Amino acid sequence: MTMKSEIISVGTELLLGNIVNTNSAFLSGELAKLGIDVYFHVTVGDNRQRLMETMGEAIERSDLIIITGGLGPTSDDITKETVAEVTGRRLIPDEAELTKLKSYFERTNREMTPNNIKQAYVPEGASVVGNDNGTAPGIILEHNNTTIIMMPGPPIEMKPMFYEKIEPYLRKKSSNSLVSITLKFFGIGESSLEHQLSDLIESQSDPTIAPYAGDGEVRVRITSRSESGEKVPESILKVVSEIEKRLGDYIYSYHDRSLQQVTAMLLLKSGKTLAVAESCTGGKLSTLLTSVSGVSKSYMGGVVSYSNGVKQSLLGVNRETLIKAGAVSRETALQMADGVRRVCGSEIGLSVTGIAGPDGGSINKPVGIVYMALSAEDGSWVWERKFMGNRDKVQTFAAKNALNHLRLYLSKGITSIDKNKY
Amino acid sequence: MTMKSEIISVGTELLLGNIVNTNSAFLSGELAKLGIDVYFHVTVGDNRQRLMETMGEAIERSDLIIITGGLGPTSDDITKETVAEVTGRRLIPDEAELTKLKSYFERTNREMTPNNIKQAYVPEGASVVGNDNGTAPGIILEHNNTTIIMMPGPPIEMKPMFYEKIEPYLRKKSSNSLVSITLKFFGIGESSLEHQLSDLIESQSDPTIAPYAGDGEVRVRITSRSESGEKVPESILKVVSEIEKRLGDYIYSYHDRSLQQVTAMLLLKSGKTLAVAESCTGGKLSTLLTSVSGVSKSYMGGVVSYSNGVKQSLLGVNRETLIKAGAVSRETALQMADGVRRVCGSEIGLSVTGIAGPDGGSINKPVGIVYMALSAEDGSWVWERKFMGNRDKVQTFAAKNALNHLRLYLSKGITSIDKNKY
Repeated sequence: MTMKSEIISVGTELLLGNIVNTNSAFLSGELAKLGIDVYFHVTVGDNRQRLMETMGEAIERSDLIIITGGLGPTSDDITKETVAEVTGRRLIPDEAELTKLKSYFERTNREMTPNNIKQAYVPEGASVVGNDNGTAPGIILEHNNTTIIMMPGPPIEMKPMFYEKIEPYLRKKSSNSLVSITLKFFGIGESSLEHQLSDLIESQSDPTIAPYAGDGEVRVRITSRSESGEKVPESILKVVSEIEKRLGDYIYSYHDRSLQQVTAMLLLKSGKTLAVAESCTGGKLSTLLTSVSGVSKSYMGGVVSYSNGVKQSLLGVNRETLIKAGAVSRETALQMADGVRRVCGSEIGLSVTGIAGPDGGSINKPVGIVYMALSAEDGSWVWERKFMGNRDKVQTFAAKNALNHLRLYLSKGITSIDKNKY
Repeated sequence: MTMKSEIISVGTELLLGNIVNTNSAFLSGELAKLGIDVYFHVTVGDNRQRLMETMGEAIERSDLIIITGGLGPTSDDITKETVAEVTGRRLIPDEAELTKLKSYFERTNREMTPNNIKQAYVPEGASVVGNDNGTAPGIILEHNNTTIIMMPGPPIEMKPMFYEKIEPYLRKKSSNSLVSITLKFFGIGESSLEHQLSDLIESQSDPTIAPYAGDGEVRVRITSRSESGEKVPESILKVVSEIEKRLGDYIYSYHDRSLQQVTAMLLLKSGKTLAVAESCTGGKLSTLLTSVSGVSKSYMGGVVSYSNGVKQSLLGVNRETLIKAGAVSRETALQMADGVRRVCGSEIGLSVTGIAGPDGGSINKPVGIVYMALSAEDGSWVWERKFMGNRDKVQTFAAKNALNHLRLYLSKGITSIDKNKY
């Protein structure tokens, strides 16, 4: 049977929105790897009554509770005190921690105020987990059938403590690890994807199949329990090949890589050089490409031709074309791709021109219309798309779609056997 | 009496640690501005029983419940269904949403599968809140003494919906609004700022003074309760002028605007034209500028001169300079700024060249070193900086610092009386 767990984050600063809670996502990802199910995240302030309520509920419904925050020296920090109260235990000083604390303050020439001493107190029966990056130790408490783990809130203290002390402890408790493969799709919506995989999703048990969307991309995670904990089980590979049969054209990564990573990998493998010309995306396409370290071997740079003047002077777009077909047109997109390839001396030229909005649209050229072109030795291509959403969304979709066209061009020679390297 | 609220995030992907929950922090910050207390954040998966449990508890203890996620078309999306069940209401089709949905699929030439239709169903008695950036509408339901608000999970849909539709609704409900001014600082660290304002922060009661950091920028929020709900109280203005006295040079916005917004406003006001040349930032500087709608009146475009070849061919950087001083040098930065100004025919040229890492550093030119230059009719300037952090951080810091140099150049003529317009 799998362990049911929940993660409790303590701190009023989280409820005021001053900081984003990254601990819960980090811990969830790590627990998933250990095959431990996370059922709830709860965030609660430095308030005795509400913390008691949250703790009491958690002990009733979960096998494992991980609490971060509220272990520090100030009077606001009441996590340990509340856990002691809920579990009916006294707080007693831990001699080793007390000594460590004293020597820390001596070493750093700081005065140890009384409230610092409270950091060395732990609930009776608990084990102390040393903190190599701060003064508040972690605590493991086995209470009836529930494991309660407390760690400091700052990720810089919590993460190393988790990897070094807590993860090995939990690994021993949890017998079965999970293995998963994440396929990434481009050019298909979440609902359409789910519709085409509905029979697989409905009949799932092992492996589980979970589609989810974000940033205009769709992922499917296929997960199975594995005894060995390492090798991808045959059951996962069978589902992958069935999904490939149905939606293979949309898959761009078998390893949860970003579109820019996969495209940059293909570009570097091709040995070809690239330059881009962009208008409505304003630099976003280039930013995506240059977010990948090492792309400079193939990516030469580009032109952000925001004004018509720059389209003419730097890219050599025809003045006639700009007047007759317009700056947002198939013709201009093609001339931009040809032009940037010529002026940068690259083997491939990629371009985007469109209307990001909210202003600048017309009946013939509404907000969201985008033209993308690719120019290379073996030909040139142009695509028209209409994107929905606000300015940021149109710019992001346009840049990613242009990138995807480049990816498809570059993967023309890639056989299906090689595909799953990306 | 203040409203007690809680925020519920729905989605198994959150509990698997696939994505970080940023919605709760965003909503908490916005609710704080409205004087609404947030007592809990709860994250729960796409599971009927646990969602029922979470919803039932929330209705008992909170006056306002904001739920994000689980409104989409797939069978996993069960937020509305569960709210309907817990509140004892039927789900009925909203005709306006149904029409909108049909026309959306017609317009985008996509097939409307049956599971899409469920997005237009709402609990009886609820109000529908249109979604301008996606297909799933938001919902407001007044149930007994509890307000239940449901919004889509993707931040790109949720945030505009909150600002345009939900915030005004809540502002009316919340009797004692908070009024706050958010000063934004550039070029000073959070701890240094806190140190210089420590006496003000320690003695605060009304107004409250809250410094917080993020994205390499520092904010100070000064908040006071206000009966009128609109006018900024004298007590806030007094604190603002004291902070100005101490740290005025670092303040770039009095209205929580982004650095790119303020810089674009100043650029448009100056009536001058701008072009940028960037190397290590790979398009990020241009992307920041073009994220602001309407900037095309002044921003002409630029060159991403990633390779030395492009620096020479498109920007006319001297070959000698590239060999002797190097691509990452004061000299190259200046020639890039001059060059882009000349080839684009703009009045101002702005450039960045540096080493974003993780590779490419040397003893003389370590990873993180960046040169920025500005060229204009009245002179040219160059700055050297060394940034810490990973590739993305160095690129972001470099782009923002270049932007800040441009802002300072453009605000030379701005008197202090006008300053607080930005």
